Amino acid sequence: MKTYAIILAAGKGTRMKSLLADKSKVSFEILGVPLVQHVLNSLKPINPSEKVVVVGFGGETTTKIVGEQAKIVWQKEQKGTGHAVKQAAPILEGKEGCTIVLCGDTPLLKSETLQKLIDDHIASKSSLTVMSAKVPNPHGYGRIVRKKDGSVERICEQADANKEIDAIDEVNTGVCVFDNILLFKYLNNLKPTNAQGEYYLTDLIKMFVDDGLRVGVSLMSDYHEMLGINDRRQLAEALAIMKRNINNSLMISGVTIVDPENTYIGPYVKVGQDTMILPGCYIVGETTIGCFNEIGPSTYLNNMKIGDSNKLICSHLIDSSIGNDNNIGPYARMRGHVNIENHVKVGNFVELKGVTIHDGAKMAHLSYLGDSEIGERTNIGCGTIIANYDGVNKFKSKIGDDVFVGSGTTIISPVIIEDDAFIAAGSTINHDVKKDDMAIARARQENKPGYAKVLRTKALEKSKK
Amino acid sequence: MKTYAIILAAGKGTRMKSLLADKSKVSFEILGVPLVQHVLNSLKPINPSEKVVVVGFGGETTTKIVGEQAKIVWQKEQKGTGHAVKQAAPILEGKEGCTIVLCGDTPLLKSETLQKLIDDHIASKSSLTVMSAKVPNPHGYGRIVRKKDGSVERICEQADANKEIDAIDEVNTGVCVFDNILLFKYLNNLKPTNAQGEYYLTDLIKMFVDDGLRVGVSLMSDYHEMLGINDRRQLAEALAIMKRNINNSLMISGVTIVDPENTYIGPYVKVGQDTMILPGCYIVGETTIGCFNEIGPSTYLNNMKIGDSNKLICSHLIDSSIGNDNNIGPYARMRGHVNIENHVKVGNFVELKGVTIHDGAKMAHLSYLGDSEIGERTNIGCGTIIANYDGVNKFKSKIGDDVFVGSGTTIISPVIIEDDAFIAAGSTINHDVKKDDMAIARARQENKPGYAKVLRTKALEKSKK
Amino acid sequence: MKTYAIILAAGKGTRMKSLLADKSKVSFEILGVPLVQHVLNSLKPINPSEKVVVVGFGGETTTKIVGEQAKIVWQKEQKGTGHAVKQAAPILEGKEGCTIVLCGDTPLLKSETLQKLIDDHIASKSSLTVMSAKVPNPHGYGRIVRKKDGSVERICEQADANKEIDAIDEVNTGVCVFDNILLFKYLNNLKPTNAQGEYYLTDLIKMFVDDGLRVGVSLMSDYHEMLGINDRRQLAEALAIMKRNINNSLMISGVTIVDPENTYIGPYVKVGQDTMILPGCYIVGETTIGCFNEIGPSTYLNNMKIGDSNKLICSHLIDSSIGNDNNIGPYARMRGHVNIENHVKVGNFVELKGVTIHDGAKMAHLSYLGDSEIGERTNIGCGTIIANYDGVNKFKSKIGDDVFVGSGTTIISPVIIEDDAFIAAGSTINHDVKKDDMAIARARQENKPGYAKVLRTKALEKSKK
Repeated sequence: MKTYAIILAAGKGTRMKSLLADKSKVSFEILGVPLVQHVLNSLKPINPSEKVVVVGFGGETTTKIVGEQAKIVWQKEQKGTGHAVKQAAPILEGKEGCTIVLCGDTPLLKSETLQKLIDDHIASKSSLTVMSAKVPNPHGYGRIVRKKDGSVERICEQADANKEIDAIDEVNTGVCVFDNILLFKYLNNLKPTNAQGEYYLTDLIKMFVDDGLRVGVSLMSDYHEMLGINDRRQLAEALAIMKRNINNSLMISGVTIVDPENTYIGPYVKVGQDTMILPGCYIVGETTIGCFNEIGPSTYLNNMKIGDSNKLICSHLIDSSIGNDNNIGPYARMRGHVNIENHVKVGNFVELKGVTIHDGAKMAHLSYLGDSEIGERTNIGCGTIIANYDGVNKFKSKIGDDVFVGSGTTIISPVIIEDDAFIAAGSTINHDVKKDDMAIARARQENKPGYAKVLRTKALEKSKK
Repeated sequence: MKTYAIILAAGKGTRMKSLLADKSKVSFEILGVPLVQHVLNSLKPINPSEKVVVVGFGGETTTKIVGEQAKIVWQKEQKGTGHAVKQAAPILEGKEGCTIVLCGDTPLLKSETLQKLIDDHIASKSSLTVMSAKVPNPHGYGRIVRKKDGSVERICEQADANKEIDAIDEVNTGVCVFDNILLFKYLNNLKPTNAQGEYYLTDLIKMFVDDGLRVGVSLMSDYHEMLGINDRRQLAEALAIMKRNINNSLMISGVTIVDPENTYIGPYVKVGQDTMILPGCYIVGETTIGCFNEIGPSTYLNNMKIGDSNKLICSHLIDSSIGNDNNIGPYARMRGHVNIENHVKVGNFVELKGVTIHDGAKMAHLSYLGDSEIGERTNIGCGTIIANYDGVNKFKSKIGDDVFVGSGTTIISPVIIEDDAFIAAGSTINHDVKKDDMAIARARQENKPGYAKVLRTKALEKSKK
Repeated sequence: MKTYAIILAAGKGTRMKSLLADKSKVSFEILGVPLVQHVLNSLKPINPSEKVVVVGFGGETTTKIVGEQAKIVWQKEQKGTGHAVKQAAPILEGKEGCTIVLCGDTPLLKSETLQKLIDDHIASKSSLTVMSAKVPNPHGYGRIVRKKDGSVERICEQADANKEIDAIDEVNTGVCVFDNILLFKYLNNLKPTNAQGEYYLTDLIKMFVDDGLRVGVSLMSDYHEMLGINDRRQLAEALAIMKRNINNSLMISGVTIVDPENTYIGPYVKVGQDTMILPGCYIVGETTIGCFNEIGPSTYLNNMKIGDSNKLICSHLIDSSIGNDNNIGPYARMRGHVNIENHVKVGNFVELKGVTIHDGAKMAHLSYLGDSEIGERTNIGCGTIIANYDGVNKFKSKIGDDVFVGSGTTIISPVIIEDDAFIAAGSTINHDVKKDDMAIARARQENKPGYAKVLRTKALEKSKK
C-alpha cells in the first residue's frame, strides 16, 4: 500500500516565548537539529510517496528547513488541526493509500513506532488507526475507550471523564494513520467545533465510528516518544531523553561514554568502537569519529571527520578532518578547513584555519597557522604566527618537510620555505627560504652593565609621582 | 499589621566540618550567595519593619554579610532556640504586630510561602502560626497533631509517637509567626528543657495551647523549601533544587537552556528571551544578559553586563560589559573593567583587562591587551601584546580608528597610535605613531645558504655527547 | 582463621564490543582504575594470605595490571566458573582457612561488605556462605530459598521459579566464601552442567546442602554493590554509583562539591577540608589536595600534589606539584614535572613543563616555560617563550630572583639570567645576562610618514586583481 505523510507545523508555539517574528515552533532545535527535521528523519525509513508539511506561523523559516524533503502547503489562518490537514488536499485528495498525520513538534517519535502504526493499520483493516500510549499520569489527556474487539469506541476528553474513564491510562497521542480517500472525504464534511470556527481532526474519529468504519489502535511501547514541545522546559526534557537514547545505543555498540548524562552527541554523529568520550563533550553536526580515540573532557566537535587512535583533549574543533594517531589539545582550536594527516601534534593554545598538516609535523604551543601547508616532520616552534592578512587580502604560505621553525617566529604570507630549512627563533620572515638554508631576522643581543638597576630606580621614581 | 522577622544564625554547623575558626554555618554559599543572604532575600517582598539576625559562632562573618540589611544581636552562649530568640527582646519586646521566626540555614524558602504564612496567621486570628509541610518520609520529624478546627493540638516528637501519630505526614518546619507581644511575654516564662539548660522555642506551642491561645497551621505547598543545611551534602542538595527552580523559571520565560541539570545560574542573574545557554556554563554575580545571545558551552560569567545577539563561546569573563553583536571566544578571557562596544571580535587565547574596545575592532588571536583603548574598525594582529607594566608602574596606551597592528607586535605603554596608522608585523613599538604613518621595528631577514645543514649537524653532535 | 581470595577474571566480556584482541573485560577502567584493580582494592583491608587471579581472555593485559598484587593462574579454556576456580588448586588446595571467591568485574563491592561475609561465615560455622542482596526487581536472578534456621536450602533459578519463589526478593550475588579444604575436595567431584562441558561453581551449593554441610547467607546492605559489568552501559552505571559514593564521603568530611553529579574524583584522590570544587572537574590518579583550595570549574587534575589555599581555575594540570597560596589559570596547563612553590601566579594561556618556580614569581599570560628554573619574585612578561629545543636536543635555562623579563621575549636555552637582571620587551635572548644588567635585542622603531596610506593603497590594488 502506498503511504503518505502530513506534518502539522503551522503553530507559533506561544509558550516558547520567542521575540522573533518568523520563528516557527518547529524550527526550535535539539542537538542542532530543528524539531521538524527530527520528524522528517523519523519518516525516512517509512519512505512515504508524498510528504506534506503544513506551515503557517514562521512559515518561511520552516520552508527553508524542509527544503526538498517534502512539499509545503500554507495554512494562512489558524483554524485547527482539521483545517490544517485539509490544506494538503490539492496534493493528496483522492489518492489510494494511507496517510500518517503527525505533528512537527514531536521529535522523539521513532521510525519503528511509525512503521508499527502502519503495520497495525493494515493488519487490522482499519479506516483510521490512532496511536495510543500508556502513561503513568493520564489526567488531562484524551482517553482511549475501546470496544470489545479492541477498536476505538470513542476518545473521552478529561472534561467528560467519569471515575471509570479516569482510571484508563491509555491515551491518544495525536498521531494517526487514515485511509487517504476517506480522510479527505470526511474532512469535507467536518464542521467547526467551537465559536472560533476551529476544525478538529480528532472529531473525525467519532464520524468514522458513527459511520461504522473501523478505528484501530496502535499502542506505542515507550510513552516518552509522544512528547510534544510546547515550552522550553519540554525542549530540555526532549533533549535529555534523546541524549539518553543516543548515548545508550552508542554504549551498546562499543563506545565508552564515561558519563552519558553529561555527554551530548547529535543524531548524525557516528562513533567507532573502543572510542572513549570523557564528560563535558558536545559533539554535533555531521561528525564521524573512528575507533580507539580518546575524546574530552570538555571537547566541542562540529562537522568533524576523525580517524582512529587520536587524542582530542579540551578542544574546540569545527569543519575539519583529522587522520590517525594525532594528539590535539588541550586548548587547541580548529576554525575550519583544517586537514590533519597522521602522527601530528597540535598542542595548547594553537589555532588552525585553512591549513593542511602533513604526517608527523608538530606545533606544540601558542601558535596561529592560517591558510598554509606544513610539510612532514616539520617542527613549528612555540609562538609561531603565520600572518595571512594585510588588512584587505588573505595570502597563503607553504612550509616544506623537515623544516625547523624556531620559537617566536612571525611569517608574513605569502612565503615559501623549502624542505630542511631552519628559521632562527625570534625572526620575522617575509621572504622565501631555500632548501637547507637558514633564515634569521632579529637584532643581536646587547647587554648593558648595571642598567637594570638604573631602570628600576627610574620606575620607582615614576611611581612616586 | 506590622511584621518583624528574627533570623536564627548563631550555629556553628559542626557537621559542615570546617576548619575555619570564624566560619558560621549561615555563611556557606550557594551559587555565590551566603545562606543567610538567601533568607534575607526571601524576606525582601515581605518588607518587615524590623529584621533581627541572631549571631553567635562566627558572628563577625555573619555580621559582615548582613551589613545594613538587618539588626544584629549576639547569642553568646548556645542555649537553644528560645534563648536565641530572646536576644531580640531589646529591639522587639512589647511592639504590636507579628514576628516571623526562621532559620538562617534554609535557603529554599520562598517569599510567597512566607507571605502565605502571615496571611494565614492574620486570617485565622491565631496567636502563633506554625508552618507545616507534608513530606514523603515523615519519620524523625515533629508531627502536627491538629484539633478539629484545624488548629494545633500539639507537636508530637518522634520519640513519643504511637502508630497513629506515625502515620501523620504533616510535620513542623520550624518556621513560625508569633503575635510579637505574646512571644516575648511567654519567652520570659520559658523554662529550660534539659539538663544542659537549653530553652526551646517549640515549647511555646504547648504553653500557648494550654493557655487557650489559638495556634494555627500554614501548610507549604512544596516541602523542599523547608530543607535546612547541616552538612555539605545538604548544601549540594539545596543547590540542585535552587538550580532547577531558577532554570525552570528562565525556560518558562523564553530562555533556551540546553541542559538545565548542567547549567548553573545564580539568583541575581537576568537573562533575556531567545538567549540560548549551552551545557557547562556557570553564571553568577550581578550578571545581566540580553536577548538572542548564544552562550557556552563551558562559559564562566561573573558580574557581566551583556547586550543582545552576542556569541560567547568557552570563555571566562568577569566584571566587564559587552554590547551587541560581538563574537567572543572560544578561550577568551576578560579579567575586569573591559568595555566592549558592538560588532567586535575577540578570538581565541585573547586576554583583556581594563580595555575599551570600540565598534568593529578585531583581536582575533593570541593577544593580551591591558589598560588601553582600541579604536573603531582597528585590526589587532595575532600575538599582539600591550605591555602595560614596567615591574613597578602600569601605563596606558591608546590606539586610534582603522589602525592595522601587524602580527607579533609588542607595544610598550604608554604609546599613542593615531588613526589609520600601520604597524609592521614583528615590531616592538615604544614611540607614538602619527596618523597614516607606518612604524616598523624589526631586523631585516638574512638567508644563510646551507647553514641549516650545519646547524643540524651541530645539534646531532651535541646529542651524542 | 587464614583467608584466601580467588578473583575470576578470565572472561572476554563479549557485550563490551571491543575490537582489541587482548582486552580482557576486567581491564576496562572506571575513573582511571581497571575493574580488577577495584576488586583488589576492596580486598586490601581483608589482607588475605593468598590472592589468586584467574585470567584467560586478554590474560596478558590482566596480568600486567595485577603485577605483584596477586598470583596469576590461567584458565585456557572457558569451561565455567567451577573450572576457573579449580585452576587455583596448585596454590590453595588443602590449606586450612576460608576462601572468598569473587568476580573481577564487580568494582562496587566494599571491603566492609566482604569483611561482614567472612565474619558471618565464621560466626555461623558454615562450610560455605553465600552473599545475598535484596533487590527491587529480582526477576531473572537466582533466588535464595532459606531453611528455618536461616541457612540456604537451595538457590532457585528463574526458570524453575513458581509464584512463591518469584516473590522472594533475596538473590544470589555470586560472591561466596568457602571452607578452603572442602572447596577443592568438592571441586574434584563437580560434574559438568551442560552439553558444552561447563562446570558451575553454584552447583557446589546443592552438593554441600545434600551432604548436610551448612550453607550460610550474608546479606549485603546495599544491593548496588553487586553490580557486575557486562556492557558499557553498566560501566557508566557503575561509575555513576562510585562517583556518588566518593563525592558523598568527601562532602561529609568537609569538602564542598558544588554539584556532585558533575564532579569526577578518582578513588585514590585525597581532598582536605574547606576545599571547594566547582562543576565540571575531573580529578584522577594519585592526586592529593590540601585545604581551603578553590578548584574549577572545568579543571582536569591527574597525579597532582596540591597544598593549601590555592585557586585553580579552568586548567589542565598533570604530574606536578603546587605549594600554597598560588593562583593558577584560567586556561593554564602543566604538562608534567612542574614544581610551583608559594604565592605564584600562573595566568591564562601559560604552559609549563619541567619547571621549578620559586616563591612569588609571576607568569601572568601567554607564555611557555620549558625545562627551566624561575627565581623568587621574578616577573615573566606576557608572551615569554623559553625555547628549550633545537630540533634534536633539549636545553635548560635558569632565571634568578627579582628578574624582570619584558613582554614578547624569546629565550633560547641554555641561558643563565642572574638576579635583578632586566630583559627589554621584544628581545630574543641567547646569551647569559649578569646580575643587575639589562639585555636588549631588538631593532629600533622607525616611523615612515604617510607610508600606511601607501600600503593600504597597494593592498586594495592587490585585492582587485
